[in-house]
Order: sequence, then structure tokens, then C-alpha cells
Amino acid sequence: MKQSHLIITALLFIFISTSIAETIPEKYQDDADKLISASLSDSTAYNRLAYICDTYGPRLSGSKNLENAIDWVLAEMEKDGLSNVHGERVKVPVWIRGKESVKLIKPFTKDLAVLGLGGSISTPRKGIRGEVIVVNSFEELEQRKDEVEGKIVLFNAAFTNYGETVQYRYKGAQEAAKYGAVASLIRSVGPWSMNTPHTGVMAYSDTIPKIPHAALTMEDAMMLRRIHDRGEKIILELRMEAKTVTDRWSRNVVAELPGSEYPEEVVVLGGHIDSWDVGQGANDDAGGCLAAWHAVKLIKELGLQPKRTLRVVMWTNEENGGRGNKAYRDEHIDELDKHVVAIESDNGVFKPKGFGFSGTEAAMEIVKEIGGLLDGIEAGEITEGGRAADVAPLNDEGVPVMSLKVDESKYFWYHHTNADTFDKIDFDDFNRCVAAMAVLAYLMADLDQTLPR
Amino acid sequence: MKQSHLIITALLFIFISTSIAETIPEKYQDDADKLISASLSDSTAYNRLAYICDTYGPRLSGSKNLENAIDWVLAEMEKDGLSNVHGERVKVPVWIRGKESVKLIKPFTKDLAVLGLGGSISTPRKGIRGEVIVVNSFEELEQRKDEVEGKIVLFNAAFTNYGETVQYRYKGAQEAAKYGAVASLIRSVGPWSMNTPHTGVMAYSDTIPKIPHAALTMEDAMMLRRIHDRGEKIILELRMEAKTVTDRWSRNVVAELPGSEYPEEVVVLGGHIDSWDVGQGANDDAGGCLAAWHAVKLIKELGLQPKRTLRVVMWTNEENGGRGNKAYRDEHIDELDKHVVAIESDNGVFKPKGFGFSGTEAAMEIVKEIGGLLDGIEAGEITEGGRAADVAPLNDEGVPVMSLKVDESKYFWYHHTNADTFDKIDFDDFNRCVAAMAVLAYLMADLDQTLPR
Repeated sequence: MKQSHLIITALLFIFISTSIAETIPEKYQDDADKLISASLSDSTAYNRLAYICDTYGPRLSGSKNLENAIDWVLAEMEKDGLSNVHGERVKVPVWIRGKESVKLIKPFTKDLAVLGLGGSISTPRKGIRGEVIVVNSFEELEQRKDEVEGKIVLFNAAFTNYGETVQYRYKGAQEAAKYGAVASLIRSVGPWSMNTPHTGVMAYSDTIPKIPHAALTMEDAMMLRRIHDRGEKIILELRMEAKTVTDRWSRNVVAELPGSEYPEEVVVLGGHIDSWDVGQGANDDAGGCLAAWHAVKLIKELGLQPKRTLRVVMWTNEENGGRGNKAYRDEHIDELDKHVVAIESDNGVFKPKGFGFSGTEAAMEIVKEIGGLLDGIEAGEITEGGRAADVAPLNDEGVPVMSLKVDESKYFWYHHTNADTFDKIDFDDFNRCVAAMAVLAYLMADLDQTLPR
Repeated sequence: MKQSHLIITALLFIFISTSIAETIPEKYQDDADKLISASLSDSTAYNRLAYICDTYGPRLSGSKNLENAIDWVLAEMEKDGLSNVHGERVKVPVWIRGKESVKLIKPFTKDLAVLGLGGSISTPRKGIRGEVIVVNSFEELEQRKDEVEGKIVLFNAAFTNYGETVQYRYKGAQEAAKYGAVASLIRSVGPWSMNTPHTGVMAYSDTIPKIPHAALTMEDAMMLRRIHDRGEKIILELRMEAKTVTDRWSRNVVAELPGSEYPEEVVVLGGHIDSWDVGQGANDDAGGCLAAWHAVKLIKELGLQPKRTLRVVMWTNEENGGRGNKAYRDEHIDELDKHVVAIESDNGVFKPKGFGFSGTEAAMEIVKEIGGLLDGIEAGEITEGGRAADVAPLNDEGVPVMSLKVDESKYFWYHHTNADTFDKIDFDDFNRCVAAMAVLAYLMADLDQTLPR
């Protein structure tokens, strides 16, 4: 595109978005207020969230829990009168934790809390007993690589932010095995602990030997570092039965409220229905799924059928493979030019702050206008960056994407632990998330024009 | 005593305390500042706290850990040059946890985190499998007593304050057994949880059958209540190997800095050296022991020998018997009229706020004057109530007693759990506790007069 064309296009976008911007608050404030009011007084969504957490518990890919939860969601969506309710089959990887234990042998004996990391191989049946070398970073490992051969490496990396610290979980085994480690352990990836180990996915390299990889608690990792620094020899025994078996069938959940004017144009909103195999997967991500679903349910109940189709999607296998989001993209590749936007909720359902957005600047202006309708519940802040895990593949194909942003101060306390349970979810905060999803999705589906790409 | 005598006595006390009050800040501000400054820059106490936590871990009465910890403390106190360093033998009860598990059988299978409660009997080897009735209070139990026979009672009592909520832990088994329950469970006694069960002592009655008694996590207790409220049948299987065996010998730790003028007059300061058999007993109560010990060590190192004797006491068996504090009282019964005051630290070593005091009003006035010397570190607030567990028996004999008060906002998060570990202790806050104990104890031992009883 020539520079002159670029300028004209930009001016055109600014003109369009400005002219729309002026009309959005006037036209939609009433509908938005109705949706917010209905969301905040609803208890069906919260009770269903409790039910799915308590009844199906953790829902790892390949588990009966996950498929039973999907069956239940599909049945309830039918009861709600949503349209085109169905599961779209996806083959998912299946990792099974089995029994696992870590015993400190020297300088004293103690059973340590542990969670193996998703994808890890097992130890031999008798376990791996070895001396431990504790490092706080990949840099320290590099500096001390000559001490690693035949040992168990413990990465005692302090939590800075998730993206940075998760590297030790993801590739710690590779880095340790490079220098001849027989197993690797990490300090759980979280800023806070009450003796709470965190699981999560890890990866091997084809060119480096595979070694078992597991997470200790923050408390024990810090203790072992202190003992190490006192010059005392540490010996641990790690046992893991973990195994990866043949892929199994799972499903992406899909349900719709058809558009009145342009039913072929679609606004996607959802979360991921799978979780880790601990806790209840409440904030990660039953809450996100239920918020998207009930946003659409409330729009329907209020008789606010929008011009375009609202499609709830609950992706499967977000946690250890991302097969659900890739399958959705592939299954719907021919309709993606008609996907107006895809909105994900996967940061927990704490007090919502607003949405992250990834799209053009002109589209961003429109989104910001819509955000203004959520100022009443302090959930209208629109920021850069909406590429959450399950919508990123759609964004790669040109679909504008968004991610619900919430108060994340405790999200990584619970993330991938036995403490990710329903009791951590506040009724009002959760319903505010439903309201934010409802208002945003409804507007996206009903505006006079779609977001400029 | 006649009224006229009372008035004269009161006036005399006011006169004495007022005249002392005027001199305390002037005379002692320099010494207090030296002690505070030395405490805040010290790292020996903090490093030793880490060492005792990491090396001897939890120290339940009857355990080798406890006796090894006591041996180490006595040896280090000798190295510090303290006087009259010795252990005073005490027979303590011995409860051994053994293996324990709770498995949810219906409506679905799940292994639940559990901690048996100290003093509980075991289950039969094959466990106790039974239907669960969930109640939120003793009142609800009473209302539903006809449903209890043959069942497992779960007390899902929400935390209000420790004194109130701990009743379910202490006497839940008695109350449930009264109506024919076969076992009893509680929601852990704490305001917050990350799937963290709490242990602690419980009691049986001689006239009511003994049944096993254990604590679930807050998360699981709340989940079971929700399931119960949905009308679903809950079946649990509880296995506990817990047993009480023959009493064993332990010791109260005693060490002194002799007084220069009135060595037979004694200021006691300390904490309890035993802990539960989980975590590291860091805030409960290694921190209190180390703070008292290093308060005296710093007074000695600064050459501030007071007129009276400072005696560090680390009581044994506070957690499940209180045999240490009774033994100390009995062993020293003839000197108790020469005990000026007994100061305990057993609320954790978080940021100190001041001290609680139990004694006469006249004495309280003096204590408040001393408290003023701690205003610089915001630890000078003197309130009513110093009867902590290990000094209460001394108070019963007329000894004024005090208790270090701290920011307790997280104390019951960790209390009696695997999360009561060294990493929860802040260097500066802990050293402020040392400073507060040092200034208070030094003044008590050096004032021109002792506290009026």
C-alpha cells in the first residue's frame, strides 16, 4: 500500500470510528444497564459454577471428569434454549499423573509435598535417589554446570512474573539434562504459598535426554537452598508414575444465540473447559466458561437478540496441548473472515477491570467506546493485548481478539493448585465478569458495523 | 482491707509510679536506643532461627527433633556465655500421628488433605467408612441430633476468632460422640487456606465414647457442605494410625544473665520450644524462643548487666499438655515471690505492636512508661491481658505477666500447619521483636523498684 493510500485509509477509519463513537453510548446505555443489572442479581451462573466444580472437580484432558462436565454443560445449554448446541470432536493428549512422592533423605528425613509437571516421564519404579544441587536461575546453572552430572537439579527461582518464572517449569528439565542431571525439580511457580505445590505443562527437547520433572513448594525449595548454602549435603528420593498414553477424544463445546440480521457473522466468547488434575479448576477456567455462557443466556432472556450471532465456545485441552483452539480454528477456517471478534476469559473471575484488545487502532477506538458502558461497574478499561491462549490462533488468521482483565493479585496464588476451588470465587466479582462479557459481546454483535480489520 | 487503707494504698502506688514514671525515659532512653539499634542490625538471631527450623523441623513433645533442638540450644547458649544454662526435666505426653488419609467415596472419589488432631485415637486398621452429616455449629448438631447415629459428623464452622472456633477442634469429638457418631471431622481452624489443613490439640471426656477426630481443609469442608445442601449422599473413608504412648522425658530450657545487685530477683522471658509435628514450628514458637534468648544475649554483649537476673525460659510441651509451664511453676514455687515479671512471646514474630499486661493498675502505669521507650519502633502499645499459656500458671501464683503483641493478621493462616515455616518470617519484623523483648526485660530487671503486686 502506498503512503497516500495508508493516510486515506487511516482517515477513513478515524472518520468511521468517530461517527460510530458518538452514537454508541446514546444508543446502548439502556441495554447495557439492563444486562449489568440482570447479571448482578443472577444466582444461576454462580450456583452452576459451584455445581460443575463440586461434581466434576478437576478436568484434565483425557479424563472422564472432563467429558462428564462437557455432557452436563451441553445438556444445560439445551435447557437454556441456546441454539446449535454441540460438541466438536478434538483428539487430545493424555498425561496421567499416577502416584508421586519426594522424600528428603539427607540431612534429615522428611516427606515433601510435590506435584509432577504435565508431560513429565516417570522415574524407575524404585525411584531416583540423588544428591541435589540447588540453583536460583539458568545463569547459576550455567556457572555451575560442572557440578551437575548425576545429580538432581532444583531450580529455586523466585517468582517475578508468570511469563518469566514459568520458563523453569517449561524447560527446566531440558536445561538440567543438558549437563547430565538425572532429574529436575522447580520451586512452584507462584508468588505465595501455604505449602502449596503448583503443577503445569513442561516440555522436552528431541535432542536432549528426558528426565523426570516435578515441582516442590516454595517453602521446601527455599529451605533446601538454605541447607545447600550451609554446605550440607542434600539427598532426595523422587518417585513418579507419570505416563503419557494414547490420545483420546474430547470436545470443544459450542452453543449459539443466532443473529437476527447477519447470522453468518459471529462473535465468539468463551474460556477453556479443561483444567489441571488438581483442585477444581475453578478460576482456571470454569469461571471463564460460565461467565461467557451466562452472558449469552442473560442476553437471550432479556430478549436482546443482536444482529449477529453470539457463539459461546469452551475450548478443550488449553492446559497441556492447546489442541482445542487449533481444532476450532481449523474446523471454522472458512468462516473466520466473518468472525467479528473472539473474546476469552482465562485470567480468573476476580473483580473485572476491563479488556485487553488486539486489533487495528481504528477498531481499538470503537472498543474503547463500548468499554465506557462498563464504567459503572469499573470494568471499562481497555488496554493493548488480547491474545489469550485460545483466541491467539484466531488472531493469527486476522480475527480481532480480546481478553477479560481482572484483579489478578491472587490468581497465581491458586493457579494450577489444589487451592483453585470454588470458595475462592466471590459472588459479586463473578457476576461483574458475567456483566462485562455480556455488555461487550452484545455490543460487538449488534453495532451497525463490524470492527475494522 | 478497709476503704481508708485502700485509698492510702492506691495513693501510695500512684505516688511511687508517678515518681518512677518521670525518671524512666530520662534514665533509660540511651540504653533502650542502644538495644534497639543492636537488635535491628543483628543477623545471628535470624540465622539461628533459620538453622533450628531447617535442622530440627517440627518438634512435637516426645520426638527426637525436640530433644535434639534442646541440646543444640543449650550448647549455643553456653557458647554465648550465658550462666546457669541447663535443662529442667519434664515428663511429657507422647502422641504419634502415624499414617492418615481421608477418601471421599460418594458422590465421587477424591483423596482429601487431612491432619489428625492431637490426642485422637486411631481408626480400626481398615478405616471407618460412613455417611457424613455436615453441620456448621454445635447448635445445628443439637437440632439434628437424631440424624447423627452411626455417621461421621463434619463441623464446617467458619472462622470467627481463635478462641471461639477452636472449640470445634477441642471438643468436637465429644459432642459428636454424644449422639452416636462414629468419627468426627472439622473444618480447619483458620481464616484462610490454600488447601492447608491445621492440626492442634483435642480432648475426650471420660463419660463419652472416644471417636477419631481429624481436620479437613477449609476448601473441602465447604465443598462437602455444598454437596450436602444439594441433598446428595456423602460417604467418606477415614484411616488414622494415631496413638498415645507412654510419657517421655523432655526439658524446659533455662539460661541466665545474673543480676548485679539482686540476683535472687528474676525477670523471666521466653517462649515454647515444642511445636506441632508439621511445618517447622517457625512462628509457633521457635521465633518467640529465639527472640527472648537473643534479647538477653544482646543485653549481655552491650555490657548492660541489670540489677536483677534475666532468665530465659523455653517451656516444653505447650502444644499438647502444658506440662512444661506447670513443671516450671512447681520447680520454682519457692522463688515465685521474687519473680518480678514473666514475659512470653507466643503470637508469632511478625511486626511487634507492644505488650499485653496482667497485674495491678499501679504496675500497669510503670509498664506503660517503659513502653514509651519502644515508640521509636512502634512497639510501645501496652494493653490489658498478658496471660499467655506458659506464663498463666505463674500469674495464678501472683507473678505479673506479659505477652508480646504483634500484627496477627496472618498468624492463624499458618498456625499448626505445614506452612508455619521460616520463610514466613521477615528479618526486620523479627529483629523488632528481639528489640521489644530486650528493652522491656532490661528495664524490668534494672528499675529501682520491682513492679507493685
